[in-house]
Amino acid sequence: MSFAGLSRRQFLERLGILGGIGAAYYGLGPIGLLPPANAAAGPPQINYNIGGGRHVVILGAGIAGLCAAYLLRNTQFKVTIIEPARQVGGRCLTLRGGDIIAEQHTDSHGEPFKPAVCQFDHDPQLYLNAGASRIPQSHSAILRYCRELKVKLQPFIFACRSNLLQNDQFNGGKPVPLRWVKHDLRGHIAEILMHAARDDQLAGFVRPENRRVFNQMVKYFGSLKESKQSLKYRGTRRGGYAKKPGAGPVRGTLRESFELNEILASGIWHTGLLSDMYLYWQSSLMQAEGGMDHIPRAFKKNLGANARLLLNRQAVGINRAADKVYIQQSGSGETLAADYCISTMAPPLLSTILDQSFAPDFKAALARTYMVPACKVGWQTKNRFWEEETEIYGGISWTKHMISQVWYPSHGFHSQKGVLTGAYMFGNSAESFGSMSNAARLAVAMAGGEKLHPGLFKQNIENGVSIAWQNMPGQAGGWAYYRNQPENPDYMKINEPQGRLLLAGDYYSYLSGWMEGAVLSAELAVKRLTRMAAEKKVA
Amino acid sequence: MSFAGLSRRQFLERLGILGGIGAAYYGLGPIGLLPPANAAAGPPQINYNIGGGRHVVILGAGIAGLCAAYLLRNTQFKVTIIEPARQVGGRCLTLRGGDIIAEQHTDSHGEPFKPAVCQFDHDPQLYLNAGASRIPQSHSAILRYCRELKVKLQPFIFACRSNLLQNDQFNGGKPVPLRWVKHDLRGHIAEILMHAARDDQLAGFVRPENRRVFNQMVKYFGSLKESKQSLKYRGTRRGGYAKKPGAGPVRGTLRESFELNEILASGIWHTGLLSDMYLYWQSSLMQAEGGMDHIPRAFKKNLGANARLLLNRQAVGINRAADKVYIQQSGSGETLAADYCISTMAPPLLSTILDQSFAPDFKAALARTYMVPACKVGWQTKNRFWEEETEIYGGISWTKHMISQVWYPSHGFHSQKGVLTGAYMFGNSAESFGSMSNAARLAVAMAGGEKLHPGLFKQNIENGVSIAWQNMPGQAGGWAYYRNQPENPDYMKINEPQGRLLLAGDYYSYLSGWMEGAVLSAELAVKRLTRMAAEKKVA
Repeated sequence: MSFAGLSRRQFLERLGILGGIGAAYYGLGPIGLLPPANAAAGPPQINYNIGGGRHVVILGAGIAGLCAAYLLRNTQFKVTIIEPARQVGGRCLTLRGGDIIAEQHTDSHGEPFKPAVCQFDHDPQLYLNAGASRIPQSHSAILRYCRELKVKLQPFIFACRSNLLQNDQFNGGKPVPLRWVKHDLRGHIAEILMHAARDDQLAGFVRPENRRVFNQMVKYFGSLKESKQSLKYRGTRRGGYAKKPGAGPVRGTLRESFELNEILASGIWHTGLLSDMYLYWQSSLMQAEGGMDHIPRAFKKNLGANARLLLNRQAVGINRAADKVYIQQSGSGETLAADYCISTMAPPLLSTILDQSFAPDFKAALARTYMVPACKVGWQTKNRFWEEETEIYGGISWTKHMISQVWYPSHGFHSQKGVLTGAYMFGNSAESFGSMSNAARLAVAMAGGEKLHPGLFKQNIENGVSIAWQNMPGQAGGWAYYRNQPENPDYMKINEPQGRLLLAGDYYSYLSGWMEGAVLSAELAVKRLTRMAAEKKVA
Repeated sequence: MSFAGLSRRQFLERLGILGGIGAAYYGLGPIGLLPPANAAAGPPQINYNIGGGRHVVILGAGIAGLCAAYLLRNTQFKVTIIEPARQVGGRCLTLRGGDIIAEQHTDSHGEPFKPAVCQFDHDPQLYLNAGASRIPQSHSAILRYCRELKVKLQPFIFACRSNLLQNDQFNGGKPVPLRWVKHDLRGHIAEILMHAARDDQLAGFVRPENRRVFNQMVKYFGSLKESKQSLKYRGTRRGGYAKKPGAGPVRGTLRESFELNEILASGIWHTGLLSDMYLYWQSSLMQAEGGMDHIPRAFKKNLGANARLLLNRQAVGINRAADKVYIQQSGSGETLAADYCISTMAPPLLSTILDQSFAPDFKAALARTYMVPACKVGWQTKNRFWEEETEIYGGISWTKHMISQVWYPSHGFHSQKGVLTGAYMFGNSAESFGSMSNAARLAVAMAGGEKLHPGLFKQNIENGVSIAWQNMPGQAGGWAYYRNQPENPDYMKINEPQGRLLLAGDYYSYLSGWMEGAVLSAELAVKRLTRMAAEKKVA
């Protein structure tokens, strides 16, 4: 638990490797130098001379594929990216007015999905980040690329404490500001702690000389009040007022607090209350100004002259020979002969196009990878009622309703309109939501929004759009999930080297579902590729 | 604890009072309609015909004075604002390159302060909000004015969990990311709770049928692990990793956690760790794009044709006659004859210019008002080392060093330079800091910054500027502090009506130090003024 004597910058400067910001930093923890073992995780040091005109085919122009091509810019590799969609970005997709969402599947009535058209106004502030939406501070690799590529970032507020919690079992189903429950729960916890402390349950935890300061800390932690020589929770200003204090004689009055047993029995404590404790769900995160797809667009703009990007092209077969990989394209597309191939396809989709030149157990592990269904809804609103009437500026409200979450924009405060993320769900509920028609989804999401903003939600919506990632062409879901990942045998199996076929994408990382996982996997694939290429050259 | 059956909007619409957004809303709590008693706290309903050419003199063009004049726009009152400074805004002051800070006092060596010049580059993104800096979501009055006046707002991140805590008694004085201590403390608290629960200390707190869910909640709250049929804190991923997880085989390793006794004994738990629990210190707040002085500027731009604003004019005497208030100005300024005067001066300063026509006990109460000394330092930096090397994007780091806080900008992520708030202190330490010369202050603040960012801070600073509000002309400190405010006799006394002299400013509210207090006090003063004027007219 200590910092290095030298600052990281000093250390790097002494090593003489602090040129352009970026490359040297990756993989270092937030503070202090990490053990040398971790240095291996940095971005590949590319030897620009090893390509020798050899052909690298990259399957998929999502973040991982674009990043791999970007890393190979200025090399003597010839790079071809093929991408089934009409645009780059993959799951880093931003929807704007006029965009078409063409899910490929049949709904629960056996009807094929009709393409939905996003009806948002043509206004650069009105968009839905339909997939990737936020970057945690600790995702230093994707942040480094954003810096290098000059993608402007702004705050994404994850937790505004006036966000709402709603659960039919709590408070008669009426939503409450998150901070009410937050501070009441802390108060109750602190009060029980003080009760236990009084009865001397602290032996073994708190040294006698720290007993007094323990009491001070708990009192402060829970906003307790002295009462008959003990400390009790009697409500707190931290949660806000029933009547606000003002000028002159206006004192304000406290709100009444919730009982611990009501909080426990209802499960409201598990309805998003503590979500921002997660390392990747911080109270604030970052987003790209104007939409997250500015990140893939910036990669695309900065590809090298050695790269060609082919959109609307799908790989339908892969064969591996001794020193080549052959990629068969759909329709009349030529078969590409690659010296190396980097696939960024979702594991189950990849498994279906690998021919008998690949090991059955490898293909089976790919096929078994559980892809998590994930859905979102976007609503364009007439006004910003959540700001004007509910004191919510960004953040996420949580409900036990199927929609699970409503996100409020962290930009454009007080402007006329806004786009709400009207649902974000994954797993079983997304499976079922995704099997509904677009109209049915919107009806469900409207009901969910109305639970959080009774009397306000429906009447202020102008139009909506939905997406189910498990139905999107070229996709198999939101991300991959591996139970007990470190010990998951399938995860280990699909990460085994496959010769000239290299795998990238967030699926092949411990950060599945995050752009950080995508770029780290691309860096790893390019490192392995260039190492192989260098060996071949020497040989 | 319940919502009204009607939404607020529905209710207001039925009353037919929902015209322009704004007026109808003020004073209502975050959700649900408040009792009618609170309606009185709304902005004054001005009868535009009652002015009758009468003269209102407003002392001070800070937020309160500007707001009062703005409320009187379009009336038949004639309004004169006199302001001692060269610009409007008062303590809502933004410093940019070329600005001069001319404190009026002598330093601890008896030398008069030399005017300091802000050396920041001329770049619209490089500024220091030297006074007012942020708006909580619950400050609905100032937010309403920002909306009406079209002041663009953006997030002000108060708490980014990679912000640092530093305390010479903790971790050998080396700073640590806040989230390390945050999650360790929660873990220890949860573990003690589970220990107490096992020994049945919960009787009276948790009903038997909720015992199981209590255990689940505590386990989740503290990220506890099962261990020998009990729940223990063994570190958590929530606090981050010693070695980050990555792609393929890179699992990552947890950091070691801090012992509870170390956290307690060092007092690190009281070094900013829990600051964002306060209602007005939320994890995110709001700020005006480009600097907080856009708020007073917007008020100024929207004053009515009935208002004249006189800068560089100081009131030096006030006399109250039967139906007039006379304001004597400094130098050769004319004596202003006012039908009504709204003073927004700090109470102790006002007390010195009230003549014998005011009651001695009122003047004495004004004079006794404790004005809190408050200081800030701003640093322009060569680069944004806190983002590039420490994963900090906005927020505040905390130290027991005199500087107390370092604020990181919430805008311009990844741009070349930035302005840090390099110190923010109040009370005794600000008293002592403010008595130093500018050079001495900067030397102290540099040492403090270096405590938080060892080896990085000093070498990346380009120039700095300091301000001590207790020394600023026309000011008496950062804000007023009233011990036990509801029962404080001086607070009651200075809020007693003084006839045609009305008092406004955050000092005269329960929100001293906040713009919300300033505008609420202005609304109250204007309401009283117009009520008096209406009575006079009727009589």
